[in-house]
Amino acid sequence: MELIDGKKVADQIKAEIAAEVTQRVADGKKRPHLAAVLVGHDGGSETYVAHKVKACEQCGFDSTLIRREADVTEQELLEIVKELNENPDIDGYIVQLPLPGHIDEQRIIEAIDPRKDVDGFHPVNVGRMSIGLPCFVSATPAGIVELLRRYGIETRGKHCVVLGRSNIVGKPVASLLMQKAAPGNCTVTVCHSATPDLKDHCRRADIIIAALGQPGFVTADMVKPGAVIIDVGTTRVPDPSKKSGFRLCGDVDFENVAPLCSHITPVPGGVGPMTICSLMSNTLLAASDKVY
Amino acid sequence: MELIDGKKVADQIKAEIAAEVTQRVADGKKRPHLAAVLVGHDGGSETYVAHKVKACEQCGFDSTLIRREADVTEQELLEIVKELNENPDIDGYIVQLPLPGHIDEQRIIEAIDPRKDVDGFHPVNVGRMSIGLPCFVSATPAGIVELLRRYGIETRGKHCVVLGRSNIVGKPVASLLMQKAAPGNCTVTVCHSATPDLKDHCRRADIIIAALGQPGFVTADMVKPGAVIIDVGTTRVPDPSKKSGFRLCGDVDFENVAPLCSHITPVPGGVGPMTICSLMSNTLLAASDKVY
Repeated sequence: MELIDGKKVADQIKAEIAAEVTQRVADGKKRPHLAAVLVGHDGGSETYVAHKVKACEQCGFDSTLIRREADVTEQELLEIVKELNENPDIDGYIVQLPLPGHIDEQRIIEAIDPRKDVDGFHPVNVGRMSIGLPCFVSATPAGIVELLRRYGIETRGKHCVVLGRSNIVGKPVASLLMQKAAPGNCTVTVCHSATPDLKDHCRRADIIIAALGQPGFVTADMVKPGAVIIDVGTTRVPDPSKKSGFRLCGDVDFENVAPLCSHITPVPGGVGPMTICSLMSNTLLAASDKVY
Repeated sequence: MELIDGKKVADQIKAEIAAEVTQRVADGKKRPHLAAVLVGHDGGSETYVAHKVKACEQCGFDSTLIRREADVTEQELLEIVKELNENPDIDGYIVQLPLPGHIDEQRIIEAIDPRKDVDGFHPVNVGRMSIGLPCFVSATPAGIVELLRRYGIETRGKHCVVLGRSNIVGKPVASLLMQKAAPGNCTVTVCHSATPDLKDHCRRADIIIAALGQPGFVTADMVKPGAVIIDVGTTRVPDPSKKSGFRLCGDVDFENVAPLCSHITPVPGGVGPMTICSLMSNTLLAASDKVY
């Protein structure tokens, strides 16, 4: 069993990006600039955005954090989006989700210029990914594919079972892995809450991508010996022994599943660090005008 | 075994559309108007476009056919697209594919205003479909889903195996059937040229959607008794006994598979007639401003 060390790969990629940025700057080009819009004070969002700002520093990017209180209006937020679209110094930006209930998230996402949509949530980027055109792939699916690539895991002709059909993980990672590409060329099965025989599908999988958000859902009896397990779950489970009061729990019963696998991602330290790393890669792509 | 009569359903839907159009016109609203751009004289394209024009008549739509010779330049075609985008009388239009090799098809598709893209090929519509937002769904996948709906075929929790991963059939029909919707909520497996054990996947399927373009590919030994078979294949096979010199051949060995199934679509007369019918539905939607 080989542990897929997402933290190590992410550090490596950030170092590669930092080297490319140094070269860019030496060539007289501008430093990539990522902006993040953070509304309110949700604990998870605060943490994610802080990590993104830190990752920008590690990569040599400029970063701008725009904060608004939770009572910001949709109109005010649309104004900010418009300014970011028009600001030539900003290469890419994200609006941290979730947004407060009175704001139509989809409306905000669709207002973002697809050329600056480094989260890859705009329908144009989603559609281009499905078609197989250059695009910004959303961060978690891109991170998963990059882990498979860097660990040299063969995907061609493999049966990949995706658990979960969310717009930010399940659907896009299924879409990526069925493409005529490497990594890719998988036979892909998407299972979800309406799948009655989910365990049977998992038992046949060469690769399982678990993105249900149900701690410990994938148990040893669901895993074929030698399978590759990618655990996207990051549920916060109360844990008084931690300073934060919680620990992150994956969708996989790691202790019992790990001995069976050829490769497995831990939680934390697997897919999580790759997600922010993909956002940095997308920002560099945006600055280099390599997508649009 | 019940034969899924696509011709009958398509006629029924066109009659429903015609009734709605009559009502619209009686209410003082404009008649829906579909335009088609046809480049060159490809036999298949000529036939398709002629069918589309005829379907417009049946539905009470206005139709406009814009013809150019195969030596039309990309720039000229982009001009036509621009005019159609700007013409307020045109509710929707299609550019018949394939286009001659010197024209970048994707560039033409992306120049079409997504609000008039009744073929549903623009990345915005592809992305919106994947996300589950209102959109123009491309005609063949929409026709397949409508057949399942009209025949009352339960899809929830069923295992649907899609053979083929084309951008116009395999990927979008997989995307539609995995959505939290009815029809939908299928566990979906997408198989393709890189799938080594395609027969095994088919044998487990409750629903098979065959869109490989390989005549007679799905044989009886690949079908679970009671399965639903949707045959999207329309390969032209030479046949001197036909006036046209060819007959249309599906991806399914109909003669031997049909006795095993609960439902099956014939070729011709199954999915084919539904495709043009979906285009009419999309045009009515476009005229009604119900998507955008």
